[in-house]
Amino acid sequence: MRFHTRKWVKPEDLNANGTLFGGRLLAWIDEEAALYSIIQLENKKVVTKYMSEINFMSSAVEGDIVEIGIEALKFGASSLVLSCEVRNKMTRETIVTVDQIVMVNLGKDGQPLPHNKTKVEFVKDRLANKS
Amino acid sequence: MRFHTRKWVKPEDLNANGTLFGGRLLAWIDEEAALYSIIQLENKKVVTKYMSEINFMSSAVEGDIVEIGIEALKFGASSLVLSCEVRNKMTRETIVTVDQIVMVNLGKDGQPLPHNKTKVEFVKDRLANKS
Amino acid sequence: MRFHTRKWVKPEDLNANGTLFGGRLLAWIDEEAALYSIIQLENKKVVTKYMSEINFMSSAVEGDIVEIGIEALKFGASSLVLSCEVRNKMTRETIVTVDQIVMVNLGKDGQPLPHNKTKVEFVKDRLANKS
Amino acid sequence: MRFHTRKWVKPEDLNANGTLFGGRLLAWIDEEAALYSIIQLENKKVVTKYMSEINFMSSAVEGDIVEIGIEALKFGASSLVLSCEVRNKMTRETIVTVDQIVMVNLGKDGQPLPHNKTKVEFVKDRLANKS
Amino acid sequence: MRFHTRKWVKPEDLNANGTLFGGRLLAWIDEEAALYSIIQLENKKVVTKYMSEINFMSSAVEGDIVEIGIEALKFGASSLVLSCEVRNKMTRETIVTVDQIVMVNLGKDGQPLPHNKTKVEFVKDRLANKS
Amino acid sequence: MRFHTRKWVKPEDLNANGTLFGGRLLAWIDEEAALYSIIQLENKKVVTKYMSEINFMSSAVEGDIVEIGIEALKFGASSLVLSCEVRNKMTRETIVTVDQIVMVNLGKDGQPLPHNKTKVEFVKDRLANKS
Repeated sequence: MRFHTRKWVKPEDLNANGTLFGGRLLAWIDEEAALYSIIQLENKKVVTKYMSEINFMSSAVEGDIVEIGIEALKFGASSLVLSCEVRNKMTRETIVTVDQIVMVNLGKDGQPLPHNKTKVEFVKDRLANKS
Repeated sequence: MRFHTRKWVKPEDLNANGTLFGGRLLAWIDEEAALYSIIQLENKKVVTKYMSEINFMSSAVEGDIVEIGIEALKFGASSLVLSCEVRNKMTRETIVTVDQIVMVNLGKDGQPLPHNKTKVEFVKDRLANKS
Repeated sequence: MRFHTRKWVKPEDLNANGTLFGGRLLAWIDEEAALYSIIQLENKKVVTKYMSEINFMSSAVEGDIVEIGIEALKFGASSLVLSCEVRNKMTRETIVTVDQIVMVNLGKDGQPLPHNKTKVEFVKDRLANKS
Repeated sequence: MRFHTRKWVKPEDLNANGTLFGGRLLAWIDEEAALYSIIQLENKKVVTKYMSEINFMSSAVEGDIVEIGIEALKFGASSLVLSCEVRNKMTRETIVTVDQIVMVNLGKDGQPLPHNKTKVEFVKDRLANKS
Repeated sequence: MRFHTRKWVKPEDLNANGTLFGGRLLAWIDEEAALYSIIQLENKKVVTKYMSEINFMSSAVEGDIVEIGIEALKFGASSLVLSCEVRNKMTRETIVTVDQIVMVNLGKDGQPLPHNKTKVEFVKDRLANKS
Repeated sequence: MRFHTRKWVKPEDLNANGTLFGGRLLAWIDEEAALYSIIQLENKKVVTKYMSEINFMSSAVEGDIVEIGIEALKFGASSLVLSCEVRNKMTRETIVTVDQIVMVNLGKDGQPLPHNKTKVEFVKDRLANKS
């Protein structure tokens, strides 16, 4: 799993217990899943269809830095199945894991559209191939 | 299930497909679960521990109004298990359901604390009992 | 008066006195008036035209839950007059009341448009009538 | 009346009619009234107690610039009464006026506290007097 | 230099050191530069092209009020060069200065467009000339 | 230079020209510089002291994904000098570069404090060394 995006836990991200608000974390995960899919599927119209169960294992406090990891599990015809882990950057302690997030590739009409991708690609390779 | 909170879908709530961003919806659900628990458990320190799988069944577009319903399934010793449904207010079409959301009641030390509640209470009855 | 939407008072909602920022409260009231009108008038283009005087009677602090109640007072030709009360969910203490909020129903051209509604309707009845 | 603060109307400030959302405008007014009072009363703990009726006379669209004017009407013992006008910067058309906004000066205990001010002061004069 | 817009430093504007977050300040400066240019160039399509070095000289804490000053340095063919200073309203202490901010006037095609302005104009004079 | 954090350009990030708002971009850069420094210096109290000139070379539109790269240039006694590049993830086109960002390590008293770091460290090595 590759960890890219990092978030700085700020006052606006806390619940009344002074720890990272779960809803904020879920929004971060969903955004990361979306942008990972957009890059892989080379299509801006990608939506979340399903998330498997979410277990909040530890939390984070103000000033902590969390990083969000995404891994592609399976390329369907018009779907992409991802796995996600969020961890505390300093301690590497896991905050939450989501085993499966199903993203769907949409066409201009908003309906599922085959994406013709079968494996993870890196942008640098794509650019090289175009030259 | 009782539907209380309503949200007006605004431009800032949309994904690039022009439909309600899944992450925003998850944050709304988590907030509603938290405040429902705070009211029931009469304790401001309540956190989300677990969410069962989430199935995005339909979506909403800008200007739509969604309403969020919560139902208490089970009162544990220091936990409260909720069920949630989000639907489109105008059509009553279901947008998403979450079968189980486990909330945990915390003490001042941030550790789970028994809440001594066994059933849903209404604030009006509590106030009446105090008089 | 029916109380639907609930808000959880978070750090971002506070003024420098550590109490609920009046401006945030006014924005919540206006949003609730708008979405109530949209549901009643079955039209997404509804704007606020007038608010009667606003008296801040009590406040709320971080972690409190407030609920917003709206009542329809009068259906005009293209207007809808509402009354609003915001109260603290736990104590039922009134935070603010607004006696009159005048909402106007607009047509596609942005001009006032008769809405042909004369009384409060419930979505469940509308759906039943369509079957 | 002196117009200081200017706001750029962005997508996040619009209602579903594509015009400036009334609730956003009210929040801007309340914030401006608060900071004007903080400067005049030289106290950070100032809260809004009352607003007279609000008449939405015109609106603004995305990309417009609005400016907010505040005038001190009366210095009470622990209060300060303000008047407010918001107008479109380019056309100088009035968007909304609020005849009276009553702000209250609070002490450390959160109770009204006399502020010993009787007229508008300018910061540059205060600084000069200290030298 | 004229100081117009004022900002109230709120919890959401702070960094983990409890002082005004630099990124927030930069966003405020950029917004103020944009709206100053929009007013001067009478064109809503204006973008930031360049900022000279930024020196953070002092900071602000929660509840402080900062004011943002802009001055026009030079009118190019399709550009406008501004200078900016942000200071603490109460103490008049300078928080940050930016010697040069280059704004570019764009046409409908998103390309630089001559703006035919050569000096600072005041809206009241423009309106007078039209009558 | 290592590129970690990715941002999805949403409606709330745009200026009136429909391109990425410069102020938003600056806030993202400052946040990324802060969290990079917090990780390297193992101290949450780090503030931005200086940014060298900023040249906006290209932009991004809604739905684009940008990634933010940071590189450590020099470890001073209590400072850390960084370099930053923001680029469009899909095209790898550079959006903006900042040659120097000076961050300062603060002690509990808010004064500069030596950080005793002389080179870039990776968290995985730190954790290994502790075992």
